Amino acid sequence: MSTLNAASLVNRHKKLSQALQAASLQAMLVNPGPSINYLTGMHFHLSERPIIAFFTPGNPPSLALPELEAAKTHGLPYELNVFTYGEDPASWGLAFQQAAAAAGLSRAQIGVEDRVLRLLELRILQGALPQAEFVPAEHIMASLRMFKDPSEVNAMQQAAQIAQKALQATLPLIKTGMRESEVAAELTLQILRQGSSPTLPFMPIVASGPHNSANPHAFPGERRLASGDLLVIDWGANQDGYFSDLTRSFGIGEISAELAAIHQVVQQANAAARAAVKPGTACAAVDQAARTIIENAGFGQYFIHRTGHGLGMEVHEEPYIRAGNPMILEPGMTFTIEPGIYIPGKGGVRIEDNVVVTEDGLQSFSDMPRELLSIG
Amino acid sequence: MSTLNAASLVNRHKKLSQALQAASLQAMLVNPGPSINYLTGMHFHLSERPIIAFFTPGNPPSLALPELEAAKTHGLPYELNVFTYGEDPASWGLAFQQAAAAAGLSRAQIGVEDRVLRLLELRILQGALPQAEFVPAEHIMASLRMFKDPSEVNAMQQAAQIAQKALQATLPLIKTGMRESEVAAELTLQILRQGSSPTLPFMPIVASGPHNSANPHAFPGERRLASGDLLVIDWGANQDGYFSDLTRSFGIGEISAELAAIHQVVQQANAAARAAVKPGTACAAVDQAARTIIENAGFGQYFIHRTGHGLGMEVHEEPYIRAGNPMILEPGMTFTIEPGIYIPGKGGVRIEDNVVVTEDGLQSFSDMPRELLSIG
Repeated sequence: MSTLNAASLVNRHKKLSQALQAASLQAMLVNPGPSINYLTGMHFHLSERPIIAFFTPGNPPSLALPELEAAKTHGLPYELNVFTYGEDPASWGLAFQQAAAAAGLSRAQIGVEDRVLRLLELRILQGALPQAEFVPAEHIMASLRMFKDPSEVNAMQQAAQIAQKALQATLPLIKTGMRESEVAAELTLQILRQGSSPTLPFMPIVASGPHNSANPHAFPGERRLASGDLLVIDWGANQDGYFSDLTRSFGIGEISAELAAIHQVVQQANAAARAAVKPGTACAAVDQAARTIIENAGFGQYFIHRTGHGLGMEVHEEPYIRAGNPMILEPGMTFTIEPGIYIPGKGGVRIEDNVVVTEDGLQSFSDMPRELLSIG
Repeated sequence: MSTLNAASLVNRHKKLSQALQAASLQAMLVNPGPSINYLTGMHFHLSERPIIAFFTPGNPPSLALPELEAAKTHGLPYELNVFTYGEDPASWGLAFQQAAAAAGLSRAQIGVEDRVLRLLELRILQGALPQAEFVPAEHIMASLRMFKDPSEVNAMQQAAQIAQKALQATLPLIKTGMRESEVAAELTLQILRQGSSPTLPFMPIVASGPHNSANPHAFPGERRLASGDLLVIDWGANQDGYFSDLTRSFGIGEISAELAAIHQVVQQANAAARAAVKPGTACAAVDQAARTIIENAGFGQYFIHRTGHGLGMEVHEEPYIRAGNPMILEPGMTFTIEPGIYIPGKGGVRIEDNVVVTEDGLQSFSDMPRELLSIG
């Protein structure tokens, strides 16, 4: 990760120690996922072989992992206690126990990430540390990861630029009669060609027509683009482990006045939400800004998801831009703005940008036109 | 999924019911991952919004999921009880409770997949079903998924063919001085171009030279290929949700006699393991066949992983081809054969094929030459 250096890792460890002490937790436990990459500077796969790292104030971090991954720990710019295990699952508990002992943990309150930690790790941990308690502590990692430093912001901006160039290169190739899956494959090629890191944040969503475009999480399928369709393209790129996640919606050929009107409403909702973003505003108020536009236009029941989600090393992370979330925006927070209207049997529209909160408002990483464009 | 039809789904549900009854479990719980796709025929992302499905003998399956995913459940070829929730996490427990009630579950022994189920789902489940017990039951899903039917075997064969064509198209482009990451991006393009489904099983590993090639799980990096390197390429493709996972190792220009000898030993180990595969043989015996060759050549300490792993809808699944695994091979099982030698500071070699057990031996899905090839 080019955004990473020894000083920033040590700074992350220090901030984590402070957050743990404030929360009266003895340690934070992370397993493969963005947080372990964020804290260790290494990359691990989530697999059937469990990996855990303990971060304890005042101690070096402590890692248990399979022997065949041990080479990754060589030459790190910080002290780390490493415990490896072989191919026999019966040996995993011992490595976990050794890592906990090196971290000075036994009868401890240990923070964990409920969204990442699996029963696989939990059962081994409960065997190795029968007196420890594993406490939900995603908010602690979120409180660090939510605030992007300038190198992280720069990576996210690059990721948005790569994505935009990729879609621009793809649009002229999209024709009536093409399958959604063909559009998705072509866009994927272009994302890689424009310089995305090879692990894409997610595979592009290409959803067309009365049914698929009205499904916010559709997978690209065999349906062929037809004149009169709405076409939703939701895609992203990866720059050094930081993601973009954009959506634009198009008309194939001539679309009905009703569908064009929906597009117009979503575009206004996107603009209203972006205009609401500044330090001191609650996440719920940004959601409300988009929702009010859509409700006033009579489509409230068809805006069936939140207005946005945090974005960074993960496609969905804090802060969540949803009704009822009192979290106050602060400079350095990064998230999506993505209102949508989905009318089953008619079609759907979503327009999604990626933004960072600045001292007096926001900066949008994405600047492709949001107006309805007819293609195909 | 073109490999899926109503009859095969209903048959899977029936086999699951039989396995649950044999294990004295009241239900199987699955959350987003291969098993939920296998059983429901739908595709779900693992995200911060939890999704669970209960399968109970004698009842229709029961699903709790976010409202915005509900469209996926329309038009299914089997009966399903669906319970949706909105954006407020406080409402998730109720949907879980409703799904459990529809499945007739309260004081139940419920099988779960420890490798897939997270604390996120577990804590909600424990709140919704305080009298239920969640029992490790990966072996039950494995006992179904391990045996591929002809359409699944066909998809895996296609996935191997796509992968091989992609590497054949990439090899002429690999030159001394290229970065590992450039080779990986080019190979990824070719995998998609050859017709892989867009969600790749994993991003290709391209690991070169004395250090990276000796790390079995290296990520492609900025290192440039140099004459005398060993180059390990581990890549795969996806056909309708079924994967290939292949490895070939190359010399860049002229390599030393010592490295060439390592390649020769690994090639012999790969052949020995393949020759050992037939119904009635234990997984451990296949591992031993490869290991004996490598140990007899004096490199036993550098073969630091198992000989193979099951392959299908997941990159790593049962059966595991490792020392100590008494599982007996049966026709329809599919797995990798991938011995390797990794000498830190000198380099590594791995040669990986994908095979299915037949009535009297095996069929290899991959047939690219395994001999040492000099490229660059």
